[in-house]
Amino acid sequence: MPIIAPSRRTIMAGAGALATAAAFNGSAGIDAAQAQATPVTQAPGFYRYKVGDITVTAVNDGFAMRPIEGFVRNADIADVRKALESAFLPTTGFQNSYTTLVLQTGGKLVMLDTGLGDNGPPTTGTWMRNFRAAGFDPAQVDQIVISHFHGDHIGGIRLKDGSMPFTKAEISVPAPEWDFWMSDDRMNAAPEAAKAGFANARRVFSPIAQQVKRYTPGAEVAPGVTSIAAHGHSPGHTIFGIASGVGKLLFVVDITSHPALFVRNPDWSAVLDQDPDAARATRRRVLDMAAVEKTQVAFYHAPFPATGHIAKAGSGYELVPVQWSPAV
Amino acid sequence: MPIIAPSRRTIMAGAGALATAAAFNGSAGIDAAQAQATPVTQAPGFYRYKVGDITVTAVNDGFAMRPIEGFVRNADIADVRKALESAFLPTTGFQNSYTTLVLQTGGKLVMLDTGLGDNGPPTTGTWMRNFRAAGFDPAQVDQIVISHFHGDHIGGIRLKDGSMPFTKAEISVPAPEWDFWMSDDRMNAAPEAAKAGFANARRVFSPIAQQVKRYTPGAEVAPGVTSIAAHGHSPGHTIFGIASGVGKLLFVVDITSHPALFVRNPDWSAVLDQDPDAARATRRRVLDMAAVEKTQVAFYHAPFPATGHIAKAGSGYELVPVQWSPAV
Repeated sequence: MPIIAPSRRTIMAGAGALATAAAFNGSAGIDAAQAQATPVTQAPGFYRYKVGDITVTAVNDGFAMRPIEGFVRNADIADVRKALESAFLPTTGFQNSYTTLVLQTGGKLVMLDTGLGDNGPPTTGTWMRNFRAAGFDPAQVDQIVISHFHGDHIGGIRLKDGSMPFTKAEISVPAPEWDFWMSDDRMNAAPEAAKAGFANARRVFSPIAQQVKRYTPGAEVAPGVTSIAAHGHSPGHTIFGIASGVGKLLFVVDITSHPALFVRNPDWSAVLDQDPDAARATRRRVLDMAAVEKTQVAFYHAPFPATGHIAKAGSGYELVPVQWSPAV
Repeated sequence: MPIIAPSRRTIMAGAGALATAAAFNGSAGIDAAQAQATPVTQAPGFYRYKVGDITVTAVNDGFAMRPIEGFVRNADIADVRKALESAFLPTTGFQNSYTTLVLQTGGKLVMLDTGLGDNGPPTTGTWMRNFRAAGFDPAQVDQIVISHFHGDHIGGIRLKDGSMPFTKAEISVPAPEWDFWMSDDRMNAAPEAAKAGFANARRVFSPIAQQVKRYTPGAEVAPGVTSIAAHGHSPGHTIFGIASGVGKLLFVVDITSHPALFVRNPDWSAVLDQDPDAARATRRRVLDMAAVEKTQVAFYHAPFPATGHIAKAGSGYELVPVQWSPAV
């Protein structure tokens, strides 16, 4: 989901998040004694869990405040407010948060999406600090697998200054995303407001066009990681089945925006879904499968650590978060 | 809630938790390069949020696995399993976790309960590392306010070797708890299995009996913190209303054990409730008040970070966790 300009309040909050991350990296910037006296920082935004032999680390990239006006195409704003209220969330807007997955699988370090890098508003961009706090180094990453080409999923591949932090990583992207976003015909035919997405895809990928691997959804893209076509949110939006032994995790990526809105009301359409009807059908299909099979799921935009199970609830579903465990 | 002996599985998990904490304190014990190569540790267990001008830090002390056999006095074990299953938890036992609150309020550093110190099983005892990871030092603590005298709430006051880590802290306890647990008549009249609780209260408090302040539930016990009688779980079990400006938090302590069991089924009685009928009435009263007033609550034994809101659900309630925020 693209991001929006943050309010002053969220900018200040973002500064707090930055201070946090600095404190946990020992790369200070804040005076240790001062921090000791009146600590104000949040814990680092990573959470680790196992899927069979695979170690999964959810890494948070901050959030952006999203106002609700005009956000749901086919629901009355009063109903949107009611949905937020019943989840005890603010009713004027919500924290849209960003959480990627990092996998230690088959001896490789594999990222599923990248966060925004330094290309987002000040309340985002905490991914690298959280990644380092989790004990990782970007130079170690063997592979980056991309779900789709929206800026909050690919921005981290290339920073504003053009540099690429993941120096040795092979990059794999869904072929249908590449075909859509890198097509000059598609770009030229797009409405003016949509052109930025095409430009950003070119900014990120054009200099490495020869090296980027394009996979066909359905293919195994990394050890234990199978890609699954889940088009609608974007033309080639792809989700991932992660399996090891009896362990299973379904990374549903942007099958929904905030679960309090779209898991509860799967027939609602966010303005960000490029093909609302296809997105709705895909959402129903994936949520129903997760509910029936009781598979653990991970979302990109659910509240951190963004993993849980799907239960049927009335005509929709609900996301039941996992119990936080200090034991990985 | 008292703890039980951990299984081999939980001991191994506990070792992981210890390694985590060590890694985040720079007090290593594990080789940094090794950790870098294959990080396996969890993020530190603290979470910070605001209640008006008061900064609240939830600090986790690990967990103990609790088997379900005999745990609920008045429910069929099949129904207990069903409740766990519908929360997507293991049905043979559950992680009973421990989370205290640390408040920065009115220029003072105030703890509400202490965790187990080093008096619990190996999957516990992570409190001090998490507290330090949150930027605090035990020598800074101005005041410790105790809710009740069960070992997982008072153990941290005095370690196994007799030492007291909170060197300058004033300690306040509920007068009815003191009167019950420090009474030799009560101890002598107690069944053999209950005597350990009396012995532990003496171990912790006898050497400082003259310095411990005894408060009457209803009193303001720290800046912005009002104690509220909530007897039943123990004879003097006390909860806390925390208020600053329009901010409000109700720390319901042991009004329930795991919410998936007792918030959903408030008429069930855990074997740990010393007066089951009083505990049940108190639980109904407090949960209903929180639901009606939509007050944010914190629990001692809810999944970390153990804070959320109470919604009515059928004949019971459910705990809706807060959305994790990187911004404090």
